[in-house]
Amino acid sequence: MFVAPLIERKRDGGALSPEEWSALVAAYTAGNVPDYQMSALLMAVVFRGLERQELASLTDAMLASGARLSYDGWSTPRVDKHSTGGVGDKVSLVLAPLVAACGVAVPMMSGRGLGHTGGTLDKLEAIPGFRTALSLEEAKAQVLRIGCALIGQTPEIAPADRRLYALRDVTGTVEAIPLIAASIMSKKLAESLSALVLDVKVGSGAFLPAEQQALELARTMITLGEDRGCPTTALLTAMDRPLGRACGNALETEEAILALRGEGPPDLMEVTYALGVEMLLAGGVERSTASARNRLENALGSGLAAEKFEQVIEAQGGNPRVVEDPSALPQAQAVEVYTARRTGIVAAVLPRIIGRAIVALGGGRRTVDDSVDPTVGFVISVKPGDKVVGGEPVASVYARDPAGLELGSSALEQAIQITDGADFVPPRPLVSHRVTSGGIEALRRGHSAAPRD
Amino acid sequence: MFVAPLIERKRDGGALSPEEWSALVAAYTAGNVPDYQMSALLMAVVFRGLERQELASLTDAMLASGARLSYDGWSTPRVDKHSTGGVGDKVSLVLAPLVAACGVAVPMMSGRGLGHTGGTLDKLEAIPGFRTALSLEEAKAQVLRIGCALIGQTPEIAPADRRLYALRDVTGTVEAIPLIAASIMSKKLAESLSALVLDVKVGSGAFLPAEQQALELARTMITLGEDRGCPTTALLTAMDRPLGRACGNALETEEAILALRGEGPPDLMEVTYALGVEMLLAGGVERSTASARNRLENALGSGLAAEKFEQVIEAQGGNPRVVEDPSALPQAQAVEVYTARRTGIVAAVLPRIIGRAIVALGGGRRTVDDSVDPTVGFVISVKPGDKVVGGEPVASVYARDPAGLELGSSALEQAIQITDGADFVPPRPLVSHRVTSGGIEALRRGHSAAPRD
Repeated sequence: MFVAPLIERKRDGGALSPEEWSALVAAYTAGNVPDYQMSALLMAVVFRGLERQELASLTDAMLASGARLSYDGWSTPRVDKHSTGGVGDKVSLVLAPLVAACGVAVPMMSGRGLGHTGGTLDKLEAIPGFRTALSLEEAKAQVLRIGCALIGQTPEIAPADRRLYALRDVTGTVEAIPLIAASIMSKKLAESLSALVLDVKVGSGAFLPAEQQALELARTMITLGEDRGCPTTALLTAMDRPLGRACGNALETEEAILALRGEGPPDLMEVTYALGVEMLLAGGVERSTASARNRLENALGSGLAAEKFEQVIEAQGGNPRVVEDPSALPQAQAVEVYTARRTGIVAAVLPRIIGRAIVALGGGRRTVDDSVDPTVGFVISVKPGDKVVGGEPVASVYARDPAGLELGSSALEQAIQITDGADFVPPRPLVSHRVTSGGIEALRRGHSAAPRD
Repeated sequence: MFVAPLIERKRDGGALSPEEWSALVAAYTAGNVPDYQMSALLMAVVFRGLERQELASLTDAMLASGARLSYDGWSTPRVDKHSTGGVGDKVSLVLAPLVAACGVAVPMMSGRGLGHTGGTLDKLEAIPGFRTALSLEEAKAQVLRIGCALIGQTPEIAPADRRLYALRDVTGTVEAIPLIAASIMSKKLAESLSALVLDVKVGSGAFLPAEQQALELARTMITLGEDRGCPTTALLTAMDRPLGRACGNALETEEAILALRGEGPPDLMEVTYALGVEMLLAGGVERSTASARNRLENALGSGLAAEKFEQVIEAQGGNPRVVEDPSALPQAQAVEVYTARRTGIVAAVLPRIIGRAIVALGGGRRTVDDSVDPTVGFVISVKPGDKVVGGEPVASVYARDPAGLELGSSALEQAIQITDGADFVPPRPLVSHRVTSGGIEALRRGHSAAPRD
């Protein structure tokens, strides 16, 4: 395949035809196009973007590189949620069993932590014995049986995306909206969903911090999904501070379990319910925000959601006892309380600093081959806007040793910014926008779900 | 070496430090940075450019990757000429012996044809026995002895450039002014020149057709040369039509020999003299354009220049008899006269069509490993602005067989455009600009050299 002219055309602002994208991705996946040509093309895409037809063709080609699930005549709606990633984002662990307990099947495919963000697979694997590497057929059988499976990207799904993602990660071509959208959607479309709900993070801890970029990513993915017969909705949610209190794999899993038992922090619950409402509406089991929210609250309050999580853990080889007794999760060797350094208003809790500190503590990845220590991390009990008194406990560090405690403490000192309040800028609304194929709705501050009742 | 953050910084418009460029090029040359990261970085450079300090650092790093000639206390000035490449551009073959015959040593390092343009090495190798692959030490000894050597880029010089150029060629990253400038200058600076004269081609047959780009390339190379102690001057010369009459390796060598014997076409002589004047002035052997021109004309008229070419050919293993008898050059199997298709004014002779047709006839390269047939090509005796009568001979095709003659004929039909004159646009002045570290002088049309007398 003669690739240089295609690179030059994209570089000069032209477009590749559907046949060209298809042949290119097939040849690349087969090892017949060298990485150095693909990386140059990807960098040209970073600068030039992709036309709508090109993006569709690239996504289709990536999808076609692997297997697709099929649920034949199964009538239960199947809805997945995808988050663009953040710090403290354990929503999937709460949301998947919760929505499954409401009668919508959730065949959820998640990723690992990379960079400063955590990954659902790492959090699940903090549960002793939990196996995320199911085959597609195993996952399908589990979804048919208990309505939920929480798995990693299998080698069968979109192998082109696997290779491209690994290449993008080391060539500075991750942060391109069409490439992000094609990567996510090629995997999601392989799941044969009835609908898809996207949690697009916005704020300093998100991969694309700016609201305009987050909205563009949302619109791009929605177009791709809708064009391919998968109704897609997105919520923009705040990632200018960590979500919930716990940051770090086992700590977040514990917080997710508490949330399923009705003891979750308010911000985590608000985002979870907002996404859950979208999933129930998209799955067609409820018709209004209020009734959907009601159903979710009942499933949680009745213990059905927690029970569903136990079923999922058991089905995937994990120890289901962690739901009743989270102390069965691995525990950190060293714990230390962190106190407010002064009296004042919490101006910010900077998520990137927290995320990077978790990596430094051994709880995240520098490369995809790194193993993670599930026990390390932080529990931060203050939020931007909170008043604190100097010396009062505001967080805890969980580490492997005293050096880790010191590192964690110093990260908290940078991350938790306390001012006298004069220059306080209010944080972003938790759920700021709802994006559908019909357009963008800006939501009122603190409003937790779609305003369409 | 952790390259991804460097790629990201360049992608986002930042700059790499001198130490970073130096370490990167060294690691790449040693095989410790993969091609896929380098190609992504190069594509980011295509879009973002390089700051002056970055360009200098990259050039220095490429220069430092290989050997440098040293002429110790040798007092003879050494001046090289570099052309950015065109069609019919056999100037080097005339200019090098001509200038050497005037007392300025010419250690000329040239390239091969690639794309639609010809290369000096291929033209020289049309001379039976001529060896262009001298070592640096051989070339130096020859320069010390006879004042001129015509060689290819040796493996000792700027190996980083060799690897980078091969990568750029297949990744759409050739057409970036800083990369072109660094590539050229890293080789030229290794020659330890007293001065350098650049022939920057402009017009549809040039790699960078637009005047603004050609001027920018000239200024960039001049800055690089001057900053590194090599006084550098550039002339912008016309490449909106082929230079001279002959296009194709042996045909051009023959035309160069005729030029050395005083029978060269006027446009070839004008460009050659203009560049020669710059070389004599830069070498310090003449102080005015008029006296320099005079000296060049005398060296040509007296036969000294042709004799110098014979010495060079003999020193490099070629058959020097070709200078007296160009029919000793290889001859094409098939020749056919091409006649004007109609009566009118020649509106254009399109160089890219001619250059590509030579490649198609077997006389140029599609990849660097292709061998070339020296005999094929064209002799085109009309220039834009000439009046022609339908049926009159205006060119000849030189090919291997009747199919080649047909191909050549059809290329001439596209390349030689004849109109009734109403929409005639005059061609570019042969030498349009003179660029020095002091600035850009636009030259009067047809003015052949520097207007500084």
